[in-house]
Amino acid sequence: MSGSEFESLEKTLEKHIPDAELKEVKRILFGKETKKLALPACAVEAASARDFELQGYLFEASPEQLRPPRTVRVGLIQNHIVLPTDAPVLDQITALYKRIGDMVDVAAMCGVNIVCFQEAWTMPFAFCTRGKEPWTEFAESAEEGYTTQFCQKLAKKYNMVVITPILEREEIHNVLWNTAVVISNSGSILGKTRKNHIPRVGDFNESTYYMEGNTGHRVFQTQFGKIAVNICYGRHHPLNWFMYSMNGAEIIFNPSATVGGLSEPMWSIEARNAAIANHCFTCGINRVGTEYFNNDFTSGDGRKAHKDLGHFYGSSYVAAPDGSRTPGLSRTRDGLMVTEMDLNLTRQISDKWNFKMTGRYEEYAEELTRATKHDFKPNIIRE
Amino acid sequence: MSGSEFESLEKTLEKHIPDAELKEVKRILFGKETKKLALPACAVEAASARDFELQGYLFEASPEQLRPPRTVRVGLIQNHIVLPTDAPVLDQITALYKRIGDMVDVAAMCGVNIVCFQEAWTMPFAFCTRGKEPWTEFAESAEEGYTTQFCQKLAKKYNMVVITPILEREEIHNVLWNTAVVISNSGSILGKTRKNHIPRVGDFNESTYYMEGNTGHRVFQTQFGKIAVNICYGRHHPLNWFMYSMNGAEIIFNPSATVGGLSEPMWSIEARNAAIANHCFTCGINRVGTEYFNNDFTSGDGRKAHKDLGHFYGSSYVAAPDGSRTPGLSRTRDGLMVTEMDLNLTRQISDKWNFKMTGRYEEYAEELTRATKHDFKPNIIRE
Repeated sequence: MSGSEFESLEKTLEKHIPDAELKEVKRILFGKETKKLALPACAVEAASARDFELQGYLFEASPEQLRPPRTVRVGLIQNHIVLPTDAPVLDQITALYKRIGDMVDVAAMCGVNIVCFQEAWTMPFAFCTRGKEPWTEFAESAEEGYTTQFCQKLAKKYNMVVITPILEREEIHNVLWNTAVVISNSGSILGKTRKNHIPRVGDFNESTYYMEGNTGHRVFQTQFGKIAVNICYGRHHPLNWFMYSMNGAEIIFNPSATVGGLSEPMWSIEARNAAIANHCFTCGINRVGTEYFNNDFTSGDGRKAHKDLGHFYGSSYVAAPDGSRTPGLSRTRDGLMVTEMDLNLTRQISDKWNFKMTGRYEEYAEELTRATKHDFKPNIIRE
Repeated sequence: MSGSEFESLEKTLEKHIPDAELKEVKRILFGKETKKLALPACAVEAASARDFELQGYLFEASPEQLRPPRTVRVGLIQNHIVLPTDAPVLDQITALYKRIGDMVDVAAMCGVNIVCFQEAWTMPFAFCTRGKEPWTEFAESAEEGYTTQFCQKLAKKYNMVVITPILEREEIHNVLWNTAVVISNSGSILGKTRKNHIPRVGDFNESTYYMEGNTGHRVFQTQFGKIAVNICYGRHHPLNWFMYSMNGAEIIFNPSATVGGLSEPMWSIEARNAAIANHCFTCGINRVGTEYFNNDFTSGDGRKAHKDLGHFYGSSYVAAPDGSRTPGLSRTRDGLMVTEMDLNLTRQISDKWNFKMTGRYEEYAEELTRATKHDFKPNIIRE
C-alpha cells in the first residue's frame, strides 16, 4: 500500500480497459487527449542506457492572427538519491551532479528550454530525522555555492533555463532557507525564490530547519516565458498559486518531496486545480524511492521508531489551463518528462473562462483583511 | 464523446481492473476507501420502484476523548427535468415538485438530515437561450414563493434541513438572482445566499439574467453543523470556497448545472481540491440529461444554431478533508447520494495538516489589496 510495487496508474488503466471505454475514462480523468511528442532517437536510446524513463507530450493552442505561437519545451526531472545517506556529504553531492548532468544532457537532446529539478535535489530528504548533522552541511549559498555554479555551466552549455531547488545557507545571517535558484539560459543567475509555506505534518518537520520564505511571489521573465516556483507544501495553499498567477506567471513549477502514505491521492488534484483556476501551466515534480537513515526517528503517530519516511512516489506531471494533463512519470523509476506547450493557450483559456475577470478580487481583499483581524466576527446565520 | 452513452467512471474501472490493482488505482484516484453505508431495504426498494439510483457512503473520524462524534447524514439529489421545456410553466414546476418530493421521501427513509437539490431545480437550465420568456416566469420570491413553501413543508415533515436553489425574484426592486434558500429542519427559513460568480462561458450566458450575488460568504448554523452554499461557477474560484471556510463552514454544497463538453474533466478536481485545501466536506451536485428548447440558439463557437446545450453529466459526489471522496452518482440517471460524515474529521485533519495555521493570510490580504489597485506593479524579475 502506497509503496513501490505499483508502477503507474495510467499504464494499469491502459492494460485492462478496452479501447472504447478507455477513451471515456481518460477524457473524464485527464481531459482533452494530450498528444505524444516525438523525441529524437538518440535521446530515447540515451535514456534507456542511463536507466531512466523518458516521456514526451504536447499541449497545442489555436492559431491566432496577431500573435505567433509561443512554444516552449519544459523538462521535469525526478530521481532517486544515488548514494546511501551515510556516504560522505561531498560524495553524495557529486554523485547527484553526475546523475542530473546525464539526465539534463538528454533533456538537451530533446530541445528542452527550461528544466526543473526536484526539491532539495542535492541531498536526501533528511528533515524527517530532526537531526542537524550532517544535513546542514548540504546547505550552500544560492549565489556562490558549488551547485549554483554547476547549474550555471549546464545552463550555458545547453542554452537552457535551470531551476535548481536547494537547501540554501544565507551566509550573512547564517540562516537556512528552502530555496529555488533560477538560472537564465545565458548562465547568469536570474534570482532566487523561497518556499512560502513550511509543513509541520507527519515526518515533514521542516520548520526545525528553515522558516517561511521572505521572497513573496516573484515571477521570473525568461526568454521562454514567465515562470514561478511554488515549492512543495505551498501546493496545498490555493492562495500561493493564485498570487504567482496574479504576478503574471504562465508556468508554475512545484518541485516537491512527498510520500505515498501522506499525500498521494491529493497529488493529482492540487497542481491541476491550480492550472485550471489560474489559467496557467503547472508542473508537479516529486522524488522517487525510499531513503534510509542511520539514526532512528519517530513520526508522532504511535508507530515504533524507524529509519525511513516511506516511498516517494514520483508521478511528476504537467497540467494545462484547459483542464487536461499529461500522464504521470513512473512511481518507481527516475524520469524525465518533456512537454512542449504553446503559452498562447493561457490567454486563450482565460478569454474563454474569464476567472480573473469574474474574480471579484477587491471584495476578497477586503474580506480577507477583515478575517485576519483579532476582532473578526464570522458571518454566521442562526435560527 | 461527453455524451450520455457512458454511465459511470467508477463502474467501468471496477468491471475491468483485477482486484489487487484496482485497490491501488482507487487509492491513488479516490484516496482512503470510503465505506458503504447500509441503507434500509424500504429505501432501496422505493428508489428502484421510482427509477433512481441510490448510493450510500460513510466518512468516519477517529474517536476523541472530549468530544462525542458529530455524525450527520447528507443527501444530494440530481435529476432530469420531468416535462419538456415547452410544457406550461406551472406544469413543469408541479412535475418537479412531485419528482423531488418522491426522492426526498426516500432520503427521509435513509435518515438524511440535510438535503440539497441541484441549481435552479424548479426549471430547465434555459439560460443558454438568452430568451426571457417564459423563463423569467420561473423566478419566485425566496421568502414567500411557492417553492420555498413546498420546501418548508418537506423540512418540517421530515425534520430535515433543505437547501433549495432557485431563480429568485427580489420583488421590491424587481431583480432576479441565482439563489439558494436554506430551510431549517424546523420548517422556518434560515436565510438565503446568492451565487457569487456568474459565468460568461460557452452557453452559460447567465449575466443576461442575474448579476453577481451580494450576500457575501454566509454560513448557516444548522442543528447538524455549519453549512454554506457555493453555487455552480463559484467552484472555479478557490477564493470563494476559502472564504466560506474562513467563516466557519464545515460542509460546502455546490449545486451546479454543467455539461460534458465544457467542464467534465474539471468536475472531479475542483470541489475535491476545495475539501482538501479548506479542511471541510464539499458536495458537488450536477443535473442529468439533455434539455431541448424550441427556439434555436448559438454558442459563439462557430457551430450552427441548435436546440440543446449538451449532456448534463450528473456525477454528484462528496469529497472529504482527508483527500478521499465517494464515487460519483451516474452520468445518466437521476440519483440520491446519502453520505454519513463525522464532522469531527474536519478539525482532526486541520490539526494534522495545519493549512489555516500555515496560511500566512495577513500577507495575502496585503498582497491581494495591492494587486487590485490601478497602479499595481507585478513582481517580475528580469535579467
